[in-house]
Amino acid sequence: MSTYSPRLNRLIEALRRLPGVGPKSAQRMAFHLLERERDGARQLALAIGEALEGIGRCPSCRMFCEDEACRYCTPERSAGGHLCVVEGPADLVAIEHGTAYRGRYFVLMGRLSPLDGIGPDELGLPRLAALLDEGWVREVIIATNPTVEGEATAYYLAEMAKARGIKVSRIAHGVPMGGELEYVDAGTLAHALSGRTAV
Amino acid sequence: MSTYSPRLNRLIEALRRLPGVGPKSAQRMAFHLLERERDGARQLALAIGEALEGIGRCPSCRMFCEDEACRYCTPERSAGGHLCVVEGPADLVAIEHGTAYRGRYFVLMGRLSPLDGIGPDELGLPRLAALLDEGWVREVIIATNPTVEGEATAYYLAEMAKARGIKVSRIAHGVPMGGELEYVDAGTLAHALSGRTAV
Ligand SMILES: [Zn+2]
Ligand SMILES: [Zn+2]
Repeated sequence: MSTYSPRLNRLIEALRRLPGVGPKSAQRMAFHLLERERDGARQLALAIGEALEGIGRCPSCRMFCEDEACRYCTPERSAGGHLCVVEGPADLVAIEHGTAYRGRYFVLMGRLSPLDGIGPDELGLPRLAALLDEGWVREVIIATNPTVEGEATAYYLAEMAKARGIKVSRIAHGVPMGGELEYVDAGTLAHALSGRTAV
Repeated sequence: MSTYSPRLNRLIEALRRLPGVGPKSAQRMAFHLLERERDGARQLALAIGEALEGIGRCPSCRMFCEDEACRYCTPERSAGGHLCVVEGPADLVAIEHGTAYRGRYFVLMGRLSPLDGIGPDELGLPRLAALLDEGWVREVIIATNPTVEGEATAYYLAEMAKARGIKVSRIAHGVPMGGELEYVDAGTLAHALSGRTAV
């Protein structure tokens, strides 16, 4: 006899696919939902369904987007001439939340990793090239993570911008080496952004 | 402007209602689901819906139950005459998974806590009394937690069984197997000492 009944088992297995959730936490979550949060569980199922249905990607910056017009791709943001390139949505949120930067973004949704089959196309770099060719970008601010792959990606991005005569900068290494941008405190992040250096 | 768009915000808020999930983890989970696990997200929403719809409580033992016949309330399990009383479903799973015990259970779904309005009725004790009156129970094994409220509950349960002339036992509390004496809290240690057994 398996430990759980079929539906309970499916619920626990589904919860385990959430990042950072092991078997013990998944069981705790399932019991909690069934015991004390049936209303919250209903809302979670509903919120997931609505998110899957209504949240797509902005064709311009590749950030999650659920409206006609992307909140990050406005004329006001373009006016400054800054385009900040980040690896993922959490990095964008960290910069937006923790710094005064209000320019445009480009979200790679990953980093160059040839061994995993992640090349320029997977990161939407043709789309980035088209963006740079629009003519309004005066400076590309590279905010990839200071990891080996993040640095390789930064190098590639810098070459793309330089080939178009666009100034390139890299956020300063106040971000600890090997650290993940999304877990850095706001002060460090703001410092790293203002202390960016020309590449 | 709020940090997240409306649907994303609702998803993150719903995930935060899971136990042990703070704002950072909720954001990470939401982005993970949208970025890399859309299929897993769909399955999670489905599993939650199915669980809410199909998982109820066994009227006899109060454990989660989704079938006509409860897997824990079988004639084979009753035959031994043991009834183990636990506070919650996770306790039942821990005993079932970690020990050779294959008797009957009664799940309180809480513990006596008058200040929180949790009395005998909320714990289904009238139902437990009826169970004890069925006549097959020869021993009630009390496995509530060794907290103040758990002990008060244990006392109450013991009185119920004794009033019916049924043998009562309490699972042993002490230094965990493989545990280091010096790292065990004082309360546990005192309990282990006073509860010492002849060798
Ligand atoms: Zn956009
Ligand atoms: Zn049952």
